[in-house]
Amino acid sequence: MPPGFTVTTETCADYLELDQKLAPGLLREIDQNISLLEEETVKKFGATDNPLLVSVRSGAAVSMPGMMDTVLNLGLTDKSVAGLTELTSNHRFALDAYRRLINMFGDVVMGVDHSHFEKSFDRIKKRFKVTEDADLNKDGLAALVTAYKRVYKKHTGEDFPQDTELQLRKAIEAVFRSWNIPRAIAYRRINNIRGLLGTAVNVQSMVFGNMGDDSGTGVAFTRDPTTGRNEFYGEFLINAQGEDVVAGIRTPQPISEMNSWRPDIYKRLLRIKRTLEIEYKDMQDIEFTIERGELYMLQTRTGKRTGAAAIKIAVDMVKERRITQKVALLRVPADDLNQVLLPSFNPAAKRHVVTIGLPASPGAASGYPVFMAEGAVARSEDGDSVILVRRETSPEDIHGMHAAAGILTSTGGSTSHAAVVARGWGKCCVAGAGELIIDEKRRLINVNGRKITGDDRISIDGATGEVMLGEVEKRPPVFTPEFKTLMKWADRNCDLVIRTNADTPHDSRIARDFGAEGIGLCRTEHMFFGEKRIMAMREMILADSTAARRRALKKLLPYQRRDFTKILLTMKGFPVTIRLLDPLLHEFLPGDQKSQRELARAMKVRLDRVKRRVNQLHEVNPMLGHRGVRLTVTYPEILEMQVIAIVQATINCRRKRMKVMPEIMIPLVGVDAELSMLRELTEQTINDVARNMNYRGELDIPIGTMIEIPRAALTADEIARHADFFSFGTNDLTQMTLGYSRDDSGSFMPSYLDKDILKNNPFQTIDADGVGQLVRTAVEKGRQTKPKLHCGVCGEHGGDPESIVFFQSVHLNYVSCSPFRVPIARLAAAQASLLEKQLTLFG
Amino acid sequence: MPPGFTVTTETCADYLELDQKLAPGLLREIDQNISLLEEETVKKFGATDNPLLVSVRSGAAVSMPGMMDTVLNLGLTDKSVAGLTELTSNHRFALDAYRRLINMFGDVVMGVDHSHFEKSFDRIKKRFKVTEDADLNKDGLAALVTAYKRVYKKHTGEDFPQDTELQLRKAIEAVFRSWNIPRAIAYRRINNIRGLLGTAVNVQSMVFGNMGDDSGTGVAFTRDPTTGRNEFYGEFLINAQGEDVVAGIRTPQPISEMNSWRPDIYKRLLRIKRTLEIEYKDMQDIEFTIERGELYMLQTRTGKRTGAAAIKIAVDMVKERRITQKVALLRVPADDLNQVLLPSFNPAAKRHVVTIGLPASPGAASGYPVFMAEGAVARSEDGDSVILVRRETSPEDIHGMHAAAGILTSTGGSTSHAAVVARGWGKCCVAGAGELIIDEKRRLINVNGRKITGDDRISIDGATGEVMLGEVEKRPPVFTPEFKTLMKWADRNCDLVIRTNADTPHDSRIARDFGAEGIGLCRTEHMFFGEKRIMAMREMILADSTAARRRALKKLLPYQRRDFTKILLTMKGFPVTIRLLDPLLHEFLPGDQKSQRELARAMKVRLDRVKRRVNQLHEVNPMLGHRGVRLTVTYPEILEMQVIAIVQATINCRRKRMKVMPEIMIPLVGVDAELSMLRELTEQTINDVARNMNYRGELDIPIGTMIEIPRAALTADEIARHADFFSFGTNDLTQMTLGYSRDDSGSFMPSYLDKDILKNNPFQTIDADGVGQLVRTAVEKGRQTKPKLHCGVCGEHGGDPESIVFFQSVHLNYVSCSPFRVPIARLAAAQASLLEKQLTLFG
Repeated sequence: MPPGFTVTTETCADYLELDQKLAPGLLREIDQNISLLEEETVKKFGATDNPLLVSVRSGAAVSMPGMMDTVLNLGLTDKSVAGLTELTSNHRFALDAYRRLINMFGDVVMGVDHSHFEKSFDRIKKRFKVTEDADLNKDGLAALVTAYKRVYKKHTGEDFPQDTELQLRKAIEAVFRSWNIPRAIAYRRINNIRGLLGTAVNVQSMVFGNMGDDSGTGVAFTRDPTTGRNEFYGEFLINAQGEDVVAGIRTPQPISEMNSWRPDIYKRLLRIKRTLEIEYKDMQDIEFTIERGELYMLQTRTGKRTGAAAIKIAVDMVKERRITQKVALLRVPADDLNQVLLPSFNPAAKRHVVTIGLPASPGAASGYPVFMAEGAVARSEDGDSVILVRRETSPEDIHGMHAAAGILTSTGGSTSHAAVVARGWGKCCVAGAGELIIDEKRRLINVNGRKITGDDRISIDGATGEVMLGEVEKRPPVFTPEFKTLMKWADRNCDLVIRTNADTPHDSRIARDFGAEGIGLCRTEHMFFGEKRIMAMREMILADSTAARRRALKKLLPYQRRDFTKILLTMKGFPVTIRLLDPLLHEFLPGDQKSQRELARAMKVRLDRVKRRVNQLHEVNPMLGHRGVRLTVTYPEILEMQVIAIVQATINCRRKRMKVMPEIMIPLVGVDAELSMLRELTEQTINDVARNMNYRGELDIPIGTMIEIPRAALTADEIARHADFFSFGTNDLTQMTLGYSRDDSGSFMPSYLDKDILKNNPFQTIDADGVGQLVRTAVEKGRQTKPKLHCGVCGEHGGDPESIVFFQSVHLNYVSCSPFRVPIARLAAAQASLLEKQLTLFG
Repeated sequence: MPPGFTVTTETCADYLELDQKLAPGLLREIDQNISLLEEETVKKFGATDNPLLVSVRSGAAVSMPGMMDTVLNLGLTDKSVAGLTELTSNHRFALDAYRRLINMFGDVVMGVDHSHFEKSFDRIKKRFKVTEDADLNKDGLAALVTAYKRVYKKHTGEDFPQDTELQLRKAIEAVFRSWNIPRAIAYRRINNIRGLLGTAVNVQSMVFGNMGDDSGTGVAFTRDPTTGRNEFYGEFLINAQGEDVVAGIRTPQPISEMNSWRPDIYKRLLRIKRTLEIEYKDMQDIEFTIERGELYMLQTRTGKRTGAAAIKIAVDMVKERRITQKVALLRVPADDLNQVLLPSFNPAAKRHVVTIGLPASPGAASGYPVFMAEGAVARSEDGDSVILVRRETSPEDIHGMHAAAGILTSTGGSTSHAAVVARGWGKCCVAGAGELIIDEKRRLINVNGRKITGDDRISIDGATGEVMLGEVEKRPPVFTPEFKTLMKWADRNCDLVIRTNADTPHDSRIARDFGAEGIGLCRTEHMFFGEKRIMAMREMILADSTAARRRALKKLLPYQRRDFTKILLTMKGFPVTIRLLDPLLHEFLPGDQKSQRELARAMKVRLDRVKRRVNQLHEVNPMLGHRGVRLTVTYPEILEMQVIAIVQATINCRRKRMKVMPEIMIPLVGVDAELSMLRELTEQTINDVARNMNYRGELDIPIGTMIEIPRAALTADEIARHADFFSFGTNDLTQMTLGYSRDDSGSFMPSYLDKDILKNNPFQTIDADGVGQLVRTAVEKGRQTKPKLHCGVCGEHGGDPESIVFFQSVHLNYVSCSPFRVPIARLAAAQASLLEKQLTLFG
């Protein structure tokens, strides 16, 4: 262990098993460790009858909102305050430490609202005619202690405990208890922190950063947690205790300024920083205190960082030969790439800057200001983009922070609560914008005389700290060399091919630039919503004979041919899986009376007929209705038109020596006879078009199906006889396998996640035991029939790192995801391959 | 082969493979057989240059509507008519045979509508001033032949063929072709006739029943096909050809009257009848012709019969030592029991009889008269019970006959089309009610001066032939000794226990009387629709706190306790599986504005609140929504109330020494954590109630779950850890495994069945490959965890014989079906056991 540490830790795994009641055995162990601390105290203060002063803090590997963090100054009582005064010859200091204890203990251990202490403080300041707490003299502090004790008694019904052991026990208990408060549980869920039995507790002997101007306290990261640059990054406050920095109550000095204050200490700190990084092989988040010129390290742990920083640190550490490429790949959470894939503001766009704060977490966000967490949740659920605007944030705000597009605070530095949480999520944050005067009640911001209300959109720039009026134009992200390096390493290490889900040349282009090697799902339904197209589509739906349907479809053919040509060319050299028409015909008809009347008029049919058809197409459970292959079985002419368009587009491109590679995918197959019948029709149509166009080359267009109905997975051996490939539609497969309607699951899903009935939302991360079992079965059965059967996934799970680990384990050939998730999928696929090899190695 | 036969048969399996084109090899064989026939003709008519006269008929084992049945008199041409005249010295007879050929060949082979010939016939009759065709003299018949030839040419564009071989080929071809016409396909589907490659064709030398008053023709059953009594049953016509009997154009004489006409022939027929039954070990359906005093047998096949007859014949034949008990059990189609389970009219009820026809098929039916098949289909789809009323029925009417509750005809006997088809389906039929004057166009019946319209309900009694005005009260069926014997044999031979689905004491009682050994599914939702109950239910749904919900639930408790007590007592000694509340809460709230307003007033809340809650509870896909266990997870107090009611009812009964055996079933489980959580709550509630009631006995209430979500089946090993039993809810399991909404599947299901994509409607007969695979997996996995796990099925498949064969094969413990299907299930279960043992024996 590096020098300067005096730490004692106990995990509470056994404790939690005992259902929140203190385990006597454990407490005995804690007691023993506290005896060791007592020895330290003796050494330090030179006398045995003097107070044992300790801090108690959570020993959880990551700090969680709602978790009790620290109680300082434990062990102070009316009696030991005298001892401390004697030892330090500083009565004012001793009283200051005591009032801090009563406040902190009352607040975090006993649940007395902080505001009660604040009001009491304000009254004392008024009585003693001072404005800053630093200005309170000995008598003022003595009065404050008395007042705080009164607040404590009023709200807890007990006197402030004068038994130091009781103080300690209660503080330890509070840490353990805080593990299971709803806010902490919510945080773990949002951040997918799982498999932990509980928190540890650290009991540490006190050192004081508030013993005068030769004392201080600070927090720092061994590298810049925002950019990842190898620069010491932190803040400190002279004559202060730790929570003053973290809570953002006073604005601290940058760490580099320590060099001019006490160069000897600064040099020592730099040396320790280096030692810690060598020891832990990763960027560290450290806390330290200087007591009367002596440096003490309070804590070190792996530091939270932005996605950009994670990439840079990982790649740099490979260059510094601290870690291997494979470790670097495993060290960047794939989802964190999201942050560097986020757009930023266009530098060329006009900005109306009203003030500048600290650039606390990168990104660019625009939205309506909201002033309370609940409002942020409600308004974002209504579909508005919102910016949460607070003086400072606290763990109570966690839900609102998650819901907001960005976070803006008027106090606190770059290590304040708002900044740390926002960086963890890759959410844009501007902190400490001191010129903002925030009026929460009237929901108003005053900034340099200008008023901003909840109805004025604002923009915040996490890269510059700028706060701007209106919505500023954004631009796509720019990729750093480290990002490109990491992606190169990822591609070198992964087995799965990454494709994308794209229906337009624009999306295809973005995805290709992001490294997609093909389109796994090109939906065709969106192509029919253009003004002229939708009319032809509706004509087709309203037709009452095959001939009339064919006439309408003929009008759609040139549009489809053009669409397919463009997409095939954008992806040339890579496969493009085109899914034939899938949705309910209902979705193409207007639902309201007015539009129906317009449609009737435009199509020169009676309103009655339009209405009748709309009613006829209505379904009780549309999810399980007349769509996908069922449409094609009843109206094969739709398939014919789409296949003709695909083949004509293909032949046209091939004649220009463009290597376009379409694949035809028939959705919603549940019975092998559906596929065999339509495969035959598809093949026949392909041959007809080739013959009509006098094309003699090999067309070789694979025909496959989506596996998205449980029965299809169960009978995959039969279905594989007619399929060149399987593409798992895990969205629908999840709906049917679990019997959850995605549109309706909001009514019970939150409660299922809260009660831990489900570990994840199965629409985000694949349910490996249920849905995954079907995927595994289908791959195995399919490959029994055709050993080389090409299998991929095109549901939203294709872009989810945890799901990708599963898809790697069943040996799919590819995953397909939305364009912006392609790099995430590439990294996740590499991680999945590496993890699988590790497992093979060790298991 | 018994004496009297001159039959030639060729199957068309190879022919069908050749896609409706005549196979030369096959024709060669037919030619060879025809040469044999020619020799017979030579023997019979004594000259080689005379006509070869044959009939061609379908050789299908069962006759199917739409299938070409027979063409008689083939081989007649202008030239051979002369030969026939010469041979028989009867020019009138030869002409009559010729005009019949042109008509029949034109109609059934060439598709010329029969009405064209009829109109032509009417003109000729007018010209020759006769009213009956029998009265036409030689000249009249000659004119009719000429007129028919003209009709033939007009509608086929060709002359009537004078080449006898061409006539023969075309007739054979027509038989083969008719196998695949939609009506025949529909009939095979309705009657579940599968696995046949096609029909055979019989070519037979002609014998003539219309050669004078010493000739005749008839059809008969070796036993009564309606009751099964061992009485010779049939009809014959003097001086007539076969189709006159079957088509019901002339009303024939009962077979017994043959004894007074020609006792020698009658005696010979009785002897043949006996021989045939001994040979084929089953009741036979025979056709015969008498030509100039000589008896010829034309055909014998196993006869169609009513369910009652099937039972009696099977049981009687065991007594007669013709067959074994096991063969008897396999010989009665389980579904046919439906017919003897049907209610009949209460003999004590008042009847307003307007006329009496032939009791052609037993049962009792009431409904609105409809006059066309299409109308019957449409109106019955609208939910009306209808009686199809026709002069006579023909294969075109088959859909309408199926849709109608009963069939009533004004001509035709007990072997007419209407009678035969109705008996096959166990549908009530009164035939040949000659006093009815049916006006199809004006949709009116005139009977003895009284007018009956489509808006007047009528009743028909298939046991007496009575046609009555209005709806006559029905009574439950009475069971024959043979039925009871068969059921006893069934129970002795089956492995599966039969339970019932029942929610009321009334249904439970019926089911128990039918032999149900317990309730497999007691739904609890219907219990909440009583006037006071629904209010409390709605109060519960509108409540906005757990406390308010509990208050409302408390009001429901006494009702539930009473419901459960009654059902448990009705089923005492047998298990009763009570399913906790399953449906969407939405279903309990009124949908229309007016009822919502009333509800708001009654509950003294604002209309807004009712509406908001209704909207809030609306779901896009209700099938996959917030129901079943999901309700209980979110509102555990509902489960508590229901469990309290069950346990209180149980303790009350047990204290009176009543052996009641409730089982608690938690529906819609998909994740084992759902069940483990609710099992714990259920057990705790059971213990609480027992403690509060001071009950010290062993309660021992099994707690199980429905397996109706694919994921539950896939993870059955996990779920079994918390379940004492599994009950397969195959209705929902089918919906989710196939992705079909039962409510919506009408939009594509018919087309899927027509195109043979699905072999059965999976909601009627279990989809063994898909849904069945999940059932099998779940049973296996469940019993891996708990080898003795009790497994049953409570979906509608539990009463379907074909599905029962499947359930036997996966070794469920029981099936549960609706009360009226219990005897069917008992028989089907015995058959399934016997079949399985046969398979084990041979395979």
